[in-house]
Amino acid sequence: MAVNLEPPLAANLKAIAGVELGIAEAGIRKANRRDLLVLRLPEEASVAGVFTQNRFCAAPVTVCRENLAAVNRGENTIRALVINTGNANAGTGEQGMADARRTCAELATQLGIKPTQVLPFSTGVIMEHLPLERLLAGLPKAISALQTDNWHAAAHAIMTTDTIAKAASRMVEIGGKSITLTGISKGAGMIKPNMATMLGFIATDAKVSQHVLAAAIKRAADLSFNSITIDGDTSTNDSFILIATGKADAPAITGLHTAEGRAFTKALNDLAIELAQKIVRDGEGATKFITLQIEGGADDDECRKVGYAIGHSPLTKTAFFASDPNLGRILAAIGYAGITDLDTSKIDLYLDDVLVATQGGRAPSYQEADGARVMKQSEITVHVKLNRGEAKRTMWTCDFSYEYVKINADYRS
Amino acid sequence: MAVNLEPPLAANLKAIAGVELGIAEAGIRKANRRDLLVLRLPEEASVAGVFTQNRFCAAPVTVCRENLAAVNRGENTIRALVINTGNANAGTGEQGMADARRTCAELATQLGIKPTQVLPFSTGVIMEHLPLERLLAGLPKAISALQTDNWHAAAHAIMTTDTIAKAASRMVEIGGKSITLTGISKGAGMIKPNMATMLGFIATDAKVSQHVLAAAIKRAADLSFNSITIDGDTSTNDSFILIATGKADAPAITGLHTAEGRAFTKALNDLAIELAQKIVRDGEGATKFITLQIEGGADDDECRKVGYAIGHSPLTKTAFFASDPNLGRILAAIGYAGITDLDTSKIDLYLDDVLVATQGGRAPSYQEADGARVMKQSEITVHVKLNRGEAKRTMWTCDFSYEYVKINADYRS
Repeated sequence: MAVNLEPPLAANLKAIAGVELGIAEAGIRKANRRDLLVLRLPEEASVAGVFTQNRFCAAPVTVCRENLAAVNRGENTIRALVINTGNANAGTGEQGMADARRTCAELATQLGIKPTQVLPFSTGVIMEHLPLERLLAGLPKAISALQTDNWHAAAHAIMTTDTIAKAASRMVEIGGKSITLTGISKGAGMIKPNMATMLGFIATDAKVSQHVLAAAIKRAADLSFNSITIDGDTSTNDSFILIATGKADAPAITGLHTAEGRAFTKALNDLAIELAQKIVRDGEGATKFITLQIEGGADDDECRKVGYAIGHSPLTKTAFFASDPNLGRILAAIGYAGITDLDTSKIDLYLDDVLVATQGGRAPSYQEADGARVMKQSEITVHVKLNRGEAKRTMWTCDFSYEYVKINADYRS
Repeated sequence: MAVNLEPPLAANLKAIAGVELGIAEAGIRKANRRDLLVLRLPEEASVAGVFTQNRFCAAPVTVCRENLAAVNRGENTIRALVINTGNANAGTGEQGMADARRTCAELATQLGIKPTQVLPFSTGVIMEHLPLERLLAGLPKAISALQTDNWHAAAHAIMTTDTIAKAASRMVEIGGKSITLTGISKGAGMIKPNMATMLGFIATDAKVSQHVLAAAIKRAADLSFNSITIDGDTSTNDSFILIATGKADAPAITGLHTAEGRAFTKALNDLAIELAQKIVRDGEGATKFITLQIEGGADDDECRKVGYAIGHSPLTKTAFFASDPNLGRILAAIGYAGITDLDTSKIDLYLDDVLVATQGGRAPSYQEADGARVMKQSEITVHVKLNRGEAKRTMWTCDFSYEYVKINADYRS
């Protein structure tokens, strides 16, 4: 039921010099399913990451944070990533940590690197222990499959309830030379701020120093994966990783605000937004893709609050599903978003180009037929003008259907 | 699909001396449906209320606040309430305010009181104007039906998507004399903290001074209507009103902490909790009634956060619907509840008497069969021990089913 989402074509996904990807079927949860992915990186690669804010974060997230902290101290480099689906290794206590470390150690031995040079990722069922032996048994197979031209298969290997693989590439000129970015993402449910239940990996052959990469990923995450919601559930495992191999023949990017930095971050943000939007388009049970354009806030935080109130409201989401212009539900969500001094008489609400509400109530010009026309579309923009200040934010969500309940009631069976 | 909720028996609902109720079919949204209720109160009645925190609050809520503010300044008394269903008179701007005031004025004229002595309430569709002429035409009919023994019909007259009317009575001895409390409530969707989308009215014949009544209703609301959630949507119209007619032959209640005060508030809180629980039991599409018992919080606020995170999580709610012990979803919700320094290794999670998780992960003793057994029940207690402090809170919610989506996708058709 994905909304206007096409499967990626392998031919459109550009290899990134220095990044090799290997896939295996490890039988972690189900047989005959690609569920294990290994990435090998060159010695000179810079790597940065952002992770879930969930306090019950998964064991692999904790290990990633430790290993990247050492990178930021200049004491470590990342040489490999290992990702499994089918099991989240979250809510698994001490054994979960031991399992994540053991996975890193085994992979490190086989690749001739140190265990701390591996970043592990898991996604799937929570509170069950990793089937470690099956995972480890899959590693040699994944390693033997390592090749640079493998992004398409990699996008498939990280899917869980996703119905369509998510991947895209960008090319951009820097100093007259071309650099390439390729990314994959996964996620369809348990998607909410502070990292959606998602995994996102973007690699580029650009030369980007560690501190610039760390700044770039924060901004990209804020604009993309931290601006989407499907069901308001923040996962235990969300991770977004940015890799720069430096293999391209283009000038190094030494700051975000240089000409090179601006060209790079534009391409990066654009790619991250596309990968994040793909997650929403493939939202569990989604039949509509909703853009939430909030402007005129006193600050960014209140724009986010309004966006998330609308994006999380089951009543608003079921109205979208039904194509029912029951738009008072959107006003109600704006009203409870948590802006305590909100003057509702100043708010304008548009559905696409239709002015729905103004001056605290229904717009005199509003005709239900106009609302009904927009609500029938598969892509709808909800445009809220708070008229309090200059801040604005764009977010994305989807509707809430029978299918969502079905998917999540049946997930483990 | 209400969960263990019986319709009230008229014989079990005690009249409250001094409170007369009149019902009419005004055809506000649909024909042949009781949709208008008038309450007439005696001159000496005390009245207190608490209302939605939604900034897009409905016009009648604004009028109620004004009129009760005058009561609190000693400049007004409340002599009548008027409640309509079918239309919320919310998101209706200036005209909505005019409509609410006109309703009060018309009723006041017919009852020989002042317009400011009327409290108006509306519930139903948002952002459509009240069909004022039909409403006003119904008033004489409701007035001619005024009688004290009319609580059962009143409970029916305030229903919207409710499948079962909600009403109950309590009797308690004060100073050797009996006092009575009778209440009605409505609500099944758009139910969340800071007043669920609900209307609640409790009347008693006890003598309770205005300031004691105001304190009593706050505490009762906190323990009852502000401790439930169905879908996380805070309505524009929530109102909970407490009326004390003073007609009983029992000693006056002059403080909450006197013997009389304690007996009264115990009965009041108990009745308010029953009325609030009835709303959850009749939650839209509900098949399970879930008690969330959160303890060991550093303060009340963090217990609420954890309760609401679990109670709002679509993933947790669909797992309850499916009777699927996918209990990692509960851990995830606790983890994203917003307690930034939460030590997950200290948390114990029980499902009824089954220890599910401890020390940051699955309890060694936990067997999936035990979880599955509890999840099959129609009533389930989720017991979270945060082990951080002494605060605790009990809240109630329901599951999330296909039927919820159906009800809310079809609501206006």
